[in-house]
Amino acid sequence: MTKWVYFFGAGKAEGDGTWRDLLGGKGAGLAEMTRIGLPVPAGFTISTEACDYFYKNGKKYPAELKKQVAEQVARLEKVTRKKLGDPKNPLLVSVRSGSARSMPGMMETILNLGLNERSVQGLAQSTKNERFAYDAYRRFVQMYSTVVMELPKEDLEHRLRAMKEKLGVKLDTDVPASGWKELVKEYKANFHEKTGKDFPEDPIEQLWGAIGAVFGSWMAEKAVTYRRVEKITGLLGTAVNVVQMVFGNTGDTSGTGVCFTRDPSSGEKIFYGDYLVNAQGEDVVAGIRTPMHLSEMKRAMPKVYAQLEKVRVKLEKHYRDMQDMEFTVEDGTLYMLQTRTGKRTPAAAFRIAVDMANEKLISKEEAIERIKPEDIERLFYPIIDAKVDKRSLESRILAKGINAVPGSAVGKVVFSAHKAENWAAKGDKVILVRRETSPEDVGGMAVAQGILTATGGKTSHAAVVARGWGKCCVVGADALNIDYKTSVMTTNGKVVKEGDWLTLDGSEGVVYTGEMPLVVPQLPKSYDTLMKWVDETRRLGVRTNADTPQDSRKAREFGAEGIGLCRTEHMFFTDFEQPERSHERQRAIQEMILADTREARVAALDKLLPFQRRDFIGIFKAMDGFPVTIRLIDPPLHEFVPHERAKQEELAKELKLDVEKVARRVEQLHEANPMLGHRGCRLCITYPEILEMQVRAIIEAAIECQKSGVKVLPEIMIPLTLDRKEMSILEQATRRVADDLIKKAGIKLPYLVGTMIELPRAALLADEIAEVADFFSFGTNDLTQTTMGLSRDDAGRFLPDYVDEKKAGVFTADPFQSLDIKGVGMLMRWGIEKGRKTRAKLKVGICGEHGGDADSVKFCHAIGMDYVSASPFRVPISRLAAAQAVIEEKLEGKKKRK
Amino acid sequence: MTKWVYFFGAGKAEGDGTWRDLLGGKGAGLAEMTRIGLPVPAGFTISTEACDYFYKNGKKYPAELKKQVAEQVARLEKVTRKKLGDPKNPLLVSVRSGSARSMPGMMETILNLGLNERSVQGLAQSTKNERFAYDAYRRFVQMYSTVVMELPKEDLEHRLRAMKEKLGVKLDTDVPASGWKELVKEYKANFHEKTGKDFPEDPIEQLWGAIGAVFGSWMAEKAVTYRRVEKITGLLGTAVNVVQMVFGNTGDTSGTGVCFTRDPSSGEKIFYGDYLVNAQGEDVVAGIRTPMHLSEMKRAMPKVYAQLEKVRVKLEKHYRDMQDMEFTVEDGTLYMLQTRTGKRTPAAAFRIAVDMANEKLISKEEAIERIKPEDIERLFYPIIDAKVDKRSLESRILAKGINAVPGSAVGKVVFSAHKAENWAAKGDKVILVRRETSPEDVGGMAVAQGILTATGGKTSHAAVVARGWGKCCVVGADALNIDYKTSVMTTNGKVVKEGDWLTLDGSEGVVYTGEMPLVVPQLPKSYDTLMKWVDETRRLGVRTNADTPQDSRKAREFGAEGIGLCRTEHMFFTDFEQPERSHERQRAIQEMILADTREARVAALDKLLPFQRRDFIGIFKAMDGFPVTIRLIDPPLHEFVPHERAKQEELAKELKLDVEKVARRVEQLHEANPMLGHRGCRLCITYPEILEMQVRAIIEAAIECQKSGVKVLPEIMIPLTLDRKEMSILEQATRRVADDLIKKAGIKLPYLVGTMIELPRAALLADEIAEVADFFSFGTNDLTQTTMGLSRDDAGRFLPDYVDEKKAGVFTADPFQSLDIKGVGMLMRWGIEKGRKTRAKLKVGICGEHGGDADSVKFCHAIGMDYVSASPFRVPISRLAAAQAVIEEKLEGKKKRK
Repeated sequence: MTKWVYFFGAGKAEGDGTWRDLLGGKGAGLAEMTRIGLPVPAGFTISTEACDYFYKNGKKYPAELKKQVAEQVARLEKVTRKKLGDPKNPLLVSVRSGSARSMPGMMETILNLGLNERSVQGLAQSTKNERFAYDAYRRFVQMYSTVVMELPKEDLEHRLRAMKEKLGVKLDTDVPASGWKELVKEYKANFHEKTGKDFPEDPIEQLWGAIGAVFGSWMAEKAVTYRRVEKITGLLGTAVNVVQMVFGNTGDTSGTGVCFTRDPSSGEKIFYGDYLVNAQGEDVVAGIRTPMHLSEMKRAMPKVYAQLEKVRVKLEKHYRDMQDMEFTVEDGTLYMLQTRTGKRTPAAAFRIAVDMANEKLISKEEAIERIKPEDIERLFYPIIDAKVDKRSLESRILAKGINAVPGSAVGKVVFSAHKAENWAAKGDKVILVRRETSPEDVGGMAVAQGILTATGGKTSHAAVVARGWGKCCVVGADALNIDYKTSVMTTNGKVVKEGDWLTLDGSEGVVYTGEMPLVVPQLPKSYDTLMKWVDETRRLGVRTNADTPQDSRKAREFGAEGIGLCRTEHMFFTDFEQPERSHERQRAIQEMILADTREARVAALDKLLPFQRRDFIGIFKAMDGFPVTIRLIDPPLHEFVPHERAKQEELAKELKLDVEKVARRVEQLHEANPMLGHRGCRLCITYPEILEMQVRAIIEAAIECQKSGVKVLPEIMIPLTLDRKEMSILEQATRRVADDLIKKAGIKLPYLVGTMIELPRAALLADEIAEVADFFSFGTNDLTQTTMGLSRDDAGRFLPDYVDEKKAGVFTADPFQSLDIKGVGMLMRWGIEKGRKTRAKLKVGICGEHGGDADSVKFCHAIGMDYVSASPFRVPISRLAAAQAVIEEKLEGKKKRK
Repeated sequence: MTKWVYFFGAGKAEGDGTWRDLLGGKGAGLAEMTRIGLPVPAGFTISTEACDYFYKNGKKYPAELKKQVAEQVARLEKVTRKKLGDPKNPLLVSVRSGSARSMPGMMETILNLGLNERSVQGLAQSTKNERFAYDAYRRFVQMYSTVVMELPKEDLEHRLRAMKEKLGVKLDTDVPASGWKELVKEYKANFHEKTGKDFPEDPIEQLWGAIGAVFGSWMAEKAVTYRRVEKITGLLGTAVNVVQMVFGNTGDTSGTGVCFTRDPSSGEKIFYGDYLVNAQGEDVVAGIRTPMHLSEMKRAMPKVYAQLEKVRVKLEKHYRDMQDMEFTVEDGTLYMLQTRTGKRTPAAAFRIAVDMANEKLISKEEAIERIKPEDIERLFYPIIDAKVDKRSLESRILAKGINAVPGSAVGKVVFSAHKAENWAAKGDKVILVRRETSPEDVGGMAVAQGILTATGGKTSHAAVVARGWGKCCVVGADALNIDYKTSVMTTNGKVVKEGDWLTLDGSEGVVYTGEMPLVVPQLPKSYDTLMKWVDETRRLGVRTNADTPQDSRKAREFGAEGIGLCRTEHMFFTDFEQPERSHERQRAIQEMILADTREARVAALDKLLPFQRRDFIGIFKAMDGFPVTIRLIDPPLHEFVPHERAKQEELAKELKLDVEKVARRVEQLHEANPMLGHRGCRLCITYPEILEMQVRAIIEAAIECQKSGVKVLPEIMIPLTLDRKEMSILEQATRRVADDLIKKAGIKLPYLVGTMIELPRAALLADEIAEVADFFSFGTNDLTQTTMGLSRDDAGRFLPDYVDEKKAGVFTADPFQSLDIKGVGMLMRWGIEKGRKTRAKLKVGICGEHGGDADSVKFCHAIGMDYVSASPFRVPISRLAAAQAVIEEKLEGKKKRK
């Protein structure tokens, strides 16, 4: 027979803290605290397996459950020497959910269960406090009504307010026993009216109602959403904890509190918490009354405080992590109700981890494991000042979108990249708002404080470019109606004009009207310590995706050890050092595209050459001593030409061409599926002169740098290859140009020629391609698109349903955010194995967005990559994940050896 | 030491007919003919290995070659008892190319080599015919000048004409010796003037010049192009055949001829050929004089004819195939110059194969192997009557495009599908001309004689749909400028208006102005015999891709054993039985797309239901007893809505909607990469009601058919799946609807639910997907697109370079025409293996365009598929290829066992 219910109390427990999967976090915590001798009210836990059974069997309980609960109730009554529903000294219990992973506020709780018309009198008698007893009763009836029966809260609140008005009192504490009695009657009448049934008097019936509500809450929409957002999967369900009630609201020697073993905000090693006299736990959570700080409690109740301090020390030693505890004092007696690992700010996470390692409470490796990628992410970005009133914030929400790049930004709205550049040049802070962005907008994006688009997902052009710069970005705010002609956008009746202030919260994906104060969090000292440990631990190299000297320098600061992806096409559009020359660059590439002959194309490319060379010199200098992987032209030429008639006319005029010719060429370049079109190395097969110019610029820059004492390690990368022969043609063309220049310069300059693996065919035939490639870099953005047949730009239409557990729930995460290890990962593993079969020392990296995603980085470690490459702001995350991968691999190895 | 040169003569040869790879077809043929005792002039062959060496070593000959050639020349002189350059009885030789595969007219020949100022006199002496000798000499000088030195032909022809004018003669045969003598002088002067060198007198120097020219011709542009077009790969190069000259032009007892062992046009077993008295071979080829038929020769030269007839019998028995022979009669002596397998018309190919099998000359299996896919293809389509004058044809070429679907078509030009339908309804024959077609045009495409588009490749919408119907189609004729507004198209100054006549040649991809007479080739009786043998031989099932009852019936006639792909989306647009109701269908699907709620969508779909049911009933009836695989909706919804404002207004009016709403919805549906977008089964995840309606229509139709005695085997196919869970959701939804209907009908109706494998991820995870799929059908069009990252619609921009041997030459064939076996094939093989690991009896087929490509069908056989599916007109090709696969597999097995 399956055991579904587990008891704890009187110093013993049928389980311990490691049984989280079975008993949930709370149940396991209570069992553990009971075992280590802490003062814990007795109770029992219905296992998560029962919840799993419940959902797998059409919401029916296991057959044996009824009997087992009854046995445990009896045992509880024995230990507490009280009886459920007893008219003299009744046992009251709380019924709470608790799954293996904390889901705060997501699931349900019922307190004071066991009260009925008879037992309430017993409670009044035993506590000698009728007012307390009826207060407890009305709380129970209220919770039972709203939580178990799901009656509207407002009706009950309305009745409470009316009653207080009638009595002329303001605070709940001023309501006399008669008031609560009356209210209980009203609540019960409401219950009967709404449900057609009497309020249950039988405590066992009450108990089963509460158990049902807790199980039901597991699949409530908000809980399901929470799990999806937090990527919580693989849980059986929630446990149900039925625990003897203890009361903090029986008088002034009672109270209830929440405390942390260290300061969850700064991480400082001080006892931190709040205590509320004469109150039940929910009062603390509700925040209606202002609690006292623990230091005040120390003065007010020194004995209990000393006991609590001992518990603090014991728990932290026991759990080896900062604990978040709930306790209640009932008539001077301390009861621990819950302990769990405490949530903390990112800064505190670093400090606590480093401090604990220094205190030898945990190992350095454990310290590294304690840091989450989000901790790092949120450490660097400016945020809206927490002092801003929450209500005021909410009233200023203009729209919600997708949180593409975290942090916040404030600026004046502009609707064109051109205007963004003009205004920024005058010293204005701007927010660039576009329906969507394209490479033509990069100049404006660069000078904007933040970027907002009405369309696109986390891997749209706007998101990818902004992420590269760590620039606040909200995309896919589809409620925005942007009218470029009038420079106005409207949303749900609100109108925003060019020049109006806007604040973006890129971490939450919210757009606010007006100008909010921002603050930049301070980087804690412990960050540097921990990251040093991280670097000592990891095996994977961590490079960055950077296209400019500025980005390169920034990435170095973030710990990047080279560039894994330098996209050269942004250089065709923007001169980051001399913005006034951007136009010249654009015209040159456009002239090349419009040329009819190889000679004319070469002439146009010759104009671009000095620009590209200068860019590369800057990047090589910034990456002195580190490898720099430069990708040759990738996007379809379509992206480089203007699509509006006016701009085409302008271009035609400047290049002295017939505007019809320009229009025709633009039309010709249009593709049904540009993602699968004439792009990547296919361009260099058609126009070898582009490759020749780019290789020339790279190698000339490298020669110049080397001559001036900079150590250069150029790695030239051919994108989108799908065949050995194709790669071989381009590899040879590259070496021809490079070797010739190096020979003429009379120096030695080692360089590599490799390829991106971003098509399934390239991964499948990696053994052949490795014959002619020094290195592979997995372009997992495109590899995901092709392997799964998903367009990043379009997937927003249906991918949310695919990731939504309540809808299709096909994927556990957006495959553009976190690698699809099963499918895309299979190709990567195969590609590396095959590639190294041909070329044992094949260097392998990743340069898709996934290089900055912790789970993906760990996978890259597991399949034997040499390095990952991430956008500058995500470099520390990749470093952390790389170290964690080593640690987790070790643990896995240990487990296996056992 | 490598042997580079091989001798034949005097009944012996250093090689035989199987040495084609080394000696080329001609060399091997000469060796073989010598060995079997036929009268063949002596000579020697420089091997293809020497040519390979030549190109691999910077156009240098192997070191030993000079010596070996000299040795063989000596041997030849000994056998012929003549000497090169001899002033009395000189040896003359021909120098000809000859590779392992026939490339008619592609490479070079030099005749009469060995003549110079001294030996020409010897020839005159020995033949007692000065005129003949100098005629031979001027021919040699002419060929050497134009072929070896590449001097312009026109200069020489001009001089010949001038000389004849001066002499007042019309025919070459009327020119006296003095005239040729004079001409030789002029030719030599021209040679000196153009090259700065004297014409070579030394026969050995002449010989090396000729050898160099033959090797050089191997990489001449026309030869390279020919090999690409004919998909000839893997050859080492050309051999050089140096053969003793024999002369058919020494007088009336001499002559030269070409003959076939059977009639190459009808295949009839008669001796067929031409003989030209007093002429050299080039005169026959040039077609200047009218030759006599062999029957005339029989009367004129009975002895020689009898000898030739013996040779005919001997050769056909020896080679076991129809032979194409060249011979020369020199003073009454027969010399065989060449024999090779003769080219034949498709009808002759069938007749010869079947006759020879019946004569027990070859086996039935060999007969099957003798038929090429193109033979079948060209057997069915109408062609432009061969009687039309070639010059007239050429003058009427309007444009050239891609030969998407073979055959020819004649009709009046219309520029819209709508007009096509109207005109066709009035009895007009129309050619539908569009920039590109979309599903909206299908109605017009159906009634058109042929389809012409300015854009797109062989797998564009127009090509795929037309191929399905076997309807003549030319696509990508990019010189056409089509103006829809004025209903006029212009091309290189020519103007074609609506209503003008046009003739399309879909086999060649040519567009002619005007109305040409067409003829339909007659299907030979031997076709049925051979196809019976084919069906007895093959293991693979052959189904068809058909969307209508009409197509289904047609496919049955072509031998289809069921439907492998019935696309349901064309049904949304066109009512093939009641065209006047097409509009109703369109409006219903558009109403569905524009609906805001599930209820409204269901209401719109309910209108479509009876249409789809009726279509399915028709198809089931046409396929009585055979399985019918029906694919649920596949294309993005974008394809079903109008994009022009006027049409949107019309739609809005009819559906009583705001036109802005319509426009917005259309805009919303726009995708950056629709191929990777919201399509396939993703639509049914978002809108389950579409699946429900379609499954209902299928099963209700099946129930009705079964009740009326039709045997139905429905197979419901889910497109574009990429995950087990996704497939499982849709499979369950399908079964829910189907089982419910079947239960209510109270009958037994077996049906299958399977999926298309058309994304790499689906192939990779085939083992998981097979858990919830009864069958797989490889959608290799999309699988090719995603595996290779190639958009069918856009690849025209660069794919030609990829297939061009002289450009990148990455692929040997267009991967959308013939499966990319290396890459896409690897995924298919993996998918089948994995899938059958989970479900041993998993039914596997292919329904991409490749199902009608012979090479691809053979691969499908090799990897263990159950069936292939092809468009109706290609069904016989697939049947043939399936049989050939069995035969070739057996041969392969035999080889291995050896």
